Amino acid sequence: MGLLVLLLLLLAFLMPGVAIPVPPALRALSNLHLSTKFTSRPSAVTKYSKYSIHYLKQKVDHFGFKNDKHFNQRYLIADQHWKKEGGSILFYTGNEGDIIWFCNNTGFMWDVAEELKAMLVFAEHRYYGQSLPFGANSFKDSRHMNFLTSEQALADFAELIKHLKKTIPAAKNQPFIAVGGSYGGMLAAWFRMKYPHMVVGALAASAPIWQFEDMVPCGVFMEIVTADFRRSSPNCSKSIRKSWDAIHRLTRNSTGLNLVSEALHLCTSLKNSQDVQHLKDWIAETWVNLAMVDYPYESNFLQPLPAWPIKVVCQHFKNPNVSDTELLQNIFSALNVYYNYSGQAKCLNMSETSTSSLGSMGWSYQQW
Amino acid sequence: MGLLVLLLLLLAFLMPGVAIPVPPALRALSNLHLSTKFTSRPSAVTKYSKYSIHYLKQKVDHFGFKNDKHFNQRYLIADQHWKKEGGSILFYTGNEGDIIWFCNNTGFMWDVAEELKAMLVFAEHRYYGQSLPFGANSFKDSRHMNFLTSEQALADFAELIKHLKKTIPAAKNQPFIAVGGSYGGMLAAWFRMKYPHMVVGALAASAPIWQFEDMVPCGVFMEIVTADFRRSSPNCSKSIRKSWDAIHRLTRNSTGLNLVSEALHLCTSLKNSQDVQHLKDWIAETWVNLAMVDYPYESNFLQPLPAWPIKVVCQHFKNPNVSDTELLQNIFSALNVYYNYSGQAKCLNMSETSTSSLGSMGWSYQQW
Repeated sequence: MGLLVLLLLLLAFLMPGVAIPVPPALRALSNLHLSTKFTSRPSAVTKYSKYSIHYLKQKVDHFGFKNDKHFNQRYLIADQHWKKEGGSILFYTGNEGDIIWFCNNTGFMWDVAEELKAMLVFAEHRYYGQSLPFGANSFKDSRHMNFLTSEQALADFAELIKHLKKTIPAAKNQPFIAVGGSYGGMLAAWFRMKYPHMVVGALAASAPIWQFEDMVPCGVFMEIVTADFRRSSPNCSKSIRKSWDAIHRLTRNSTGLNLVSEALHLCTSLKNSQDVQHLKDWIAETWVNLAMVDYPYESNFLQPLPAWPIKVVCQHFKNPNVSDTELLQNIFSALNVYYNYSGQAKCLNMSETSTSSLGSMGWSYQQW
Repeated sequence: MGLLVLLLLLLAFLMPGVAIPVPPALRALSNLHLSTKFTSRPSAVTKYSKYSIHYLKQKVDHFGFKNDKHFNQRYLIADQHWKKEGGSILFYTGNEGDIIWFCNNTGFMWDVAEELKAMLVFAEHRYYGQSLPFGANSFKDSRHMNFLTSEQALADFAELIKHLKKTIPAAKNQPFIAVGGSYGGMLAAWFRMKYPHMVVGALAASAPIWQFEDMVPCGVFMEIVTADFRRSSPNCSKSIRKSWDAIHRLTRNSTGLNLVSEALHLCTSLKNSQDVQHLKDWIAETWVNLAMVDYPYESNFLQPLPAWPIKVVCQHFKNPNVSDTELLQNIFSALNVYYNYSGQAKCLNMSETSTSSLGSMGWSYQQW
């Protein structure tokens, strides 16, 4: 968050055996020729498009014997730069969304493929995208949701790597390296810990591996989000802090509810205090998302956005000491940066905060 | 098997981080002053008796959220030699039986406790002894048996270590070392691999960690058993090999069935060819057990036995070229070494091959 915070945890040294030399592929990964200055997106989108789609039959339950059902896990392979001699395999440990979307948004792997002579594998996480253990019934009830755990997902990855080593002979003795971001970065790190014989290392980007109860103070995440806006301009974070009370004051009666609905161009008008709470939650999540995708180049991950989108948002929050209605107008302008960079939006839809490629059904369950 | 085959796999080097020095407790473990010549059991049985019994509330399912049931896992603590300063914790990863029985038969831990200033913890494996996830219903059907896996057992151990570190402050920063034998040795090794942050090392004794399909030829185990008897005397293994046909010839009719039943002093007479097959399986399992407990001192693990019991058994198999009835008599004498060393047995019971402390219900399920 904030500047380009790409937390790289190179877990190569969790290897069995002391003083085993770092494999060449991992050494190469550490010495990659990456520019540290980004003014534009470093990789052209077009080069991501060449992958083949595959499916592997996976057990629904890796840890018990009673449920003997199976499902198809989707995975993608891009082998344009792969070399059978001296090559390596970068294995993306899929997280909470459609794997094709992650594949198209993980430029790092595509950027380094040629240098590492690497095959790229993108494995979809169970209960996301097309990898649904019980098809349309996957989210029906707790019985069907029971197999949505990180442990089961890691076991899927292990089975997939076993399958690849078996069916692609030249890959058998090549180093596999787990790569993931965010929750997927946690998975990459955990995969290296739990299956140390399957990958020689793991690269965990932006992975909050310690963000658990009793490990970090529970308010830390939101403090960092606030700091990102404050760093852009102290008046920006102050304006946002003031905005909650302003919304509260403006929505005390039905006239106010209509006024706010119109000022924010909401697709569905606010009807009551419950809707107002929903509005506040939605706006807060928008600022959180902006902190997560505050890339230094134009991008299209959660939404199409300009470079440094927080800077652009904060252009609209220069003065915190304005009237409530003026602040409301500023909120609308700021929300527009996130929801209407393309200029196509007719109204703002409170039921969405990001791309539908993220699997909200599974993620709501995993997070809470 | 055979001589004192105590396969020690010191898995200390599966540690995160290269070139981390071996912790003092593990160094001490490698340098222990153990005699290599045993003429009598190295530890007096009496010294094993001082332990306290505890229970920890464990989740029935560590890998899903649907089943929120709990059960009490039993564990034992012996802390006579434990020192809060510079001490360590030896953690026995319980296997397929009553934990008190294992506690009383794991002399190694008691022998080294003083030198390592160690607390001894013996954790019972779920579905064995008193640690039954569903009480009397634990083996009722596949729904109840579903949580009997090594993965769940390892997770129990991890929760127990977390609990001990939390509730025994002086133990928090002391090194934990996993110790186990046989299947429990596999668990100790796997525990070090899957939970590298919880134990600084593992000692896996007599642990067939590679004995899986496609990893070792499937006949290897029985070949080693045969070799143990052959090493005692080639005539011994030859006699046993001949005995199967002899039994077959002797049990062709009802007279023969009675004759064999009487000669072997069976508690229940043989009635048909199915009983004869059962007899052969029972005798074969007896030889297998003898190979597993061929200790160089008098012992009482699976059964009360003399030192080097295979040598004693083979005293009765000196000549393979005897008549079928004479060979039958020799089999009886040999079986007596295993089933009647105490001289108390009135007849030989084909429904038992070892102590009832082993959990046959769970083990039959885990093995097949």
